[in-house]
This record gives sequence, structure tokens and C-alpha cells, in this order.
Amino acid sequence: MRGAVLHAPGDVRVEDLDAPRILAPTDAIIRLAAACVCGSDLWPYRGIEKIDGPRPMGHEYVGVVEEIGDEVRTVSVGDFVIGSFFASDNTCEICRSGYQSSCVHREGVGGAQAQHMRVPLADGTLVATGGMPSDDLVPSLLAASDVLGTGWFGAVAAQAGPGRTVAVVGDGAVGLLGVLAARQLGAERVMAMSRHAARQKLATDFGATDIVAERGADGVARIKDLTDGLGAHSVIEAVGTQEAMMQAIHATRPGGHVGYVGVAHDVQLPGMELFFSHVHLHGGPAPVRRFLPDLVDRIMNRQIDPGRVFDLHLPLERAAEAYRAMDERRAVKALLRP
Amino acid sequence: MRGAVLHAPGDVRVEDLDAPRILAPTDAIIRLAAACVCGSDLWPYRGIEKIDGPRPMGHEYVGVVEEIGDEVRTVSVGDFVIGSFFASDNTCEICRSGYQSSCVHREGVGGAQAQHMRVPLADGTLVATGGMPSDDLVPSLLAASDVLGTGWFGAVAAQAGPGRTVAVVGDGAVGLLGVLAARQLGAERVMAMSRHAARQKLATDFGATDIVAERGADGVARIKDLTDGLGAHSVIEAVGTQEAMMQAIHATRPGGHVGYVGVAHDVQLPGMELFFSHVHLHGGPAPVRRFLPDLVDRIMNRQIDPGRVFDLHLPLERAAEAYRAMDERRAVKALLRP
Repeated sequence: MRGAVLHAPGDVRVEDLDAPRILAPTDAIIRLAAACVCGSDLWPYRGIEKIDGPRPMGHEYVGVVEEIGDEVRTVSVGDFVIGSFFASDNTCEICRSGYQSSCVHREGVGGAQAQHMRVPLADGTLVATGGMPSDDLVPSLLAASDVLGTGWFGAVAAQAGPGRTVAVVGDGAVGLLGVLAARQLGAERVMAMSRHAARQKLATDFGATDIVAERGADGVARIKDLTDGLGAHSVIEAVGTQEAMMQAIHATRPGGHVGYVGVAHDVQLPGMELFFSHVHLHGGPAPVRRFLPDLVDRIMNRQIDPGRVFDLHLPLERAAEAYRAMDERRAVKALLRP
Repeated sequence: MRGAVLHAPGDVRVEDLDAPRILAPTDAIIRLAAACVCGSDLWPYRGIEKIDGPRPMGHEYVGVVEEIGDEVRTVSVGDFVIGSFFASDNTCEICRSGYQSSCVHREGVGGAQAQHMRVPLADGTLVATGGMPSDDLVPSLLAASDVLGTGWFGAVAAQAGPGRTVAVVGDGAVGLLGVLAARQLGAERVMAMSRHAARQKLATDFGATDIVAERGADGVARIKDLTDGLGAHSVIEAVGTQEAMMQAIHATRPGGHVGYVGVAHDVQLPGMELFFSHVHLHGGPAPVRRFLPDLVDRIMNRQIDPGRVFDLHLPLERAAEAYRAMDERRAVKALLRP
């Protein structure tokens, strides 16, 4: 089969790979309908995260079940399924409390930028759509695998909902879908922080009521202006830098909630400042599995169209172009069709 | 009148001071029934926090209203009242959301280690007991002014309650009262971290079900042993050092809650570790005013006896001894009677 492999920084090649096989009786093999490039794939692509050797890439996936292990019960061959970046048993105490991405048996999932992939713990990890989705829904279902689920978790962690003002720091795919999530969860006022016209437009289409182009202290001041001087009730942090985290904390009112889902690179939070900010802080790797059944329903009912974050569609064979476009910020997010 | 003044590190003197007067129509003057020395008073006493000049000390207080400004409506001369370390209007949007210690009009309160003191924003700050409490209840009512209210907030921030396991980091007055709060809030299992026999005893009397004498990584391992390897649902951090904060975060299960009420001195939280811990983090200066009516009821009904944290009772004139005993850790908390 064909699959994308990172050989060295900047060097992604689509090549012939061994097809994956069932290794454990809880595994499933799926034939991918679509995959995509994640912001986090750019860390090794840029050489910031070291790789030990050639690495098959991709951890966002939708596809059709081709084969299942002997112990798989809840998905069947032929089902159209969606999973996420951590496989989880969905039965342990941590999973049952809604934190499947910290499942006591969690396993990383990889090699999704390919024609076929192996998904461990298939019963706990995969959600079937119930019928074959029409092709135009595939991008939205793929978005649910990571960026929608992550933006949704950010909004939930920030307690976005009716009667609460929401600010979103970060206008990447996750931030934009955080806007969508906040509105779906009932927030009437959602302030998107962005200075890129195309992303501002998408944020507005997803339901942002205000666009804040200022950054840093000026951005915080603008959020306060828009919230009677108090700050937002809920702030979604979808970047993961020190500046973005502090911007999120400063833009939140005392007693408000910061939901942070940007992977925190080189972030150190000053204790005294956090203490006197009086905010709630929650986040981490999104437990996408918690939200998947609901998100799949909303997509199948055409209530939301998160697939619009994919502004570049390419065949899998042109994966290298997809990485380049995202690395150079010419694309928000690239979808690959095997 | 007589009052305690810090002149320099280690130099507390009780001396003649001008009696306080009404400065704003929202002020009240109270005659103190009791005051006490706070752990935070030790920062300037030890010279770690600089003072500009002689500083009247004390911010925990109970007493009888002697005089009120023209605009004070909810307390009357002769009422026995309790307030806290921040004066708050209790009407602004932040107060109404339960964060009175971040009130938009908040003012610090000081000079409580004296015979009389001025309390700003009396209507929003003071809670009357409704009748003169019997003298043996005075220590417990005084505890409500700060250490009980702070331990209670820690327990609430950590979401201590029925069905949740609770661990408490810190065996000072706040930590011990965090144990009491967690039990009052319905937690069946409360693990107190302490290696001092007298404090272990008090923790047990306040409802701790387990005592953990280990610290650091060993303490975390012990909490995990006691919680099926997962960590506690709720951890109250009542110290404020880097070690204590990290111990609290590591002892909490994914999806669990850390309530931190130790003033965070020189704390820097590593973003990546916090991210993957999956904990909720909330804390800060306790909005004691939110809890005071309930706490006063529980004390007046003799349901709780938080005044037991005062293991040294002295007349105000011997304030210097009280500071020395706390500085040398011979006393958990010293009560002063004017």
C-alpha cells in the first residue's frame, strides 16, 4: 500500500509500505477515506521534534472497516468509522469519567496518511456513522477526528455556554472550530482573535460575533472593552505558546474559565499571577472520544460543517505539497485522499 | 487604643495608637473580640516581604460594631460581626458570581491585631451572627474570617464532595480546615498529608480517614496506592511552594481537580506537564465572604469547631510571643484577645 513517511526534516515521501495486519484481537484494520496533516505533524517536519528514523505520519482518520480482531464486538467489517489520536478502551474508570485520552490502556495511533491503518482497542476507539455518509460529509467527519474534537473540548473546558461571553485565542483550525463549538454550546457572544482576513471570514461563518485583531496586551484590553471591563467568562487557548497562554489568562474575568488545548510548548505559568487571576484552568489532549457520537450526529444531520477548515484538498500522493503549504501557512489545513 | 505594630523583621510591639475613625460613609468601626496571627504575617515578620515603615498588623477579625457610616444598612451598632481580609461591595458582577476577593471595589483590610479597627464597605464585607455568641464560640468564628474560609474554598475549588476521594497537601491551619471542609462537603475519604503527630491527630479529629506521612514523589505514590493507582479526584494545595503544587498536580487523577489556596511563592508551573496531567486547576485568594453565612451557621449550631486550630491563646499585649511561637513552628495558630 501507499503511505506518507517522514524521513528527515522537510522530507516527506509517499512510498510503498507493508499493509498493516491485525496484531491483537482488539485491533481493526480500516481503509482510509481521507486523512490530513495536523499542526502537530509540523513539529517533526520542522526538525524541532527529533525522529529516530523514517516515521509513517498521520493520526486523524475516517474510513471503512476491512478486518477486525476476534474480540472486536461494536464495529463490523463494512462500517464507516471515525477514531482519534489516542486509542482507548472506553471502559476504565478514567474513560468512564470522560478522559479517554488519559485511558489507563491508551495507545498512540499513527500512520493514518496511508491507504490502510491499524487501530488498536477498536471497540473503545472507533465510532461508526450508521450507514455510509455521502462523500461531501467526509471532510467534516475527518475534522471530528481531531481539530473539531479538540476545539470542542476547549469550549467545554472553558465552560462556554448560554449567558457566557467567550474569547478564542488562536485562529488555526482548532481555534476556528472552538468558535463553532462555543456557538453550538449556546454562547451568544464569541470573540475570535485573528488578523488574517480569510480566517476572520471563516470565524464569522462559524458564528463569531466579534473579531479582535489586536494581540498581546492590546488584545486583552480589547476583550475587556467588550466585556464591561471584566474580561470574558470563557477563553479558549488554541495555540500553546507562553504569549497565548498569558493572553488567555489575562483576558478571563476572575472566576472565569480558561480551556487550553494548544500543546503547551516551553510554557511556564507564573504561580503568583495565576493565583491572583482567580481563573479556572483546564485542558490537555482532548478526549475526542467523549464527544464523537454527538459530533458525528451533528455532522450527519448537517447541523455543522467543520470540514470547511480544509482549504487544501490533495491526493495522498501529493502529501509533500500538503506539508509545504501548511508549513508556509498558505493553508489552514490540508486534506489528503488516498 | 492598643495595637500590634511591626517595626522591622522580628520586631512586633504592642503600643498606643490613634483609635480608627469613620472615613467613608460605608465604613464601620468594630471593637475586636479576638484577632490572630496569620501565616502570611510571617512573610514581613521574617523580612522576606519588605515593609516601608511601621505597619499595624492583622487581617482576621471578629467583634462588635461600635459605629457605622451614614450609608451602612445591613449591620447595626451592637451586632457581633465577622469579616475577611478583603473588603468587598458584594453587589458587583464579580461579587455576585462568588468571587468577592476580586471585587471591582475591593480594599485590603488591616490593623486587626488591636482593640478597634475600621472595616470599609461594611454592608458587603461584614456578616452578623444574629445574637451575641457564647464566648467559647469566638475562636471558631475567628477561624471563619480566614483559615476556615480559605480551607473551605480549597475544598470547593477541588470539588470535594460525595463519591470523591480527597487529598490535602499541607498541615497548617488552612490544610487542616481543608480536611474539615472536605468532610462537611460530603467526601467519605480524606487523606491528610502530615508528618507531625499533633497535626495528624487534629486532622483525624476533623475527619481525615487516612494519614500520609510521605512527601514528594513518595507521597504521590502513596496517594496513588490508596486510589487504585489513579490518584485522588480532588487535591487541596495549602502550602504555596513549587514542591507542594507539583505534589498536588501529580497526586490528582486525569480529569480531577486541584484547589490551590497556598499563596504561590516562586511557583512556575511547567506547561507541558500540566497539559498532560489533565487536571483542573483553580484557586487564589479565597472569596471568604461567599461562604461566611453558611460557615457562621455551622459554627453557631456547633456542627463544626474550627477554632481548635488555635493552639496558643494569648492576650493582645503578648503579640510578640505569638509571632515568635508561629515563626518557630511551636504553634499552628495563635489567637490574641484584646
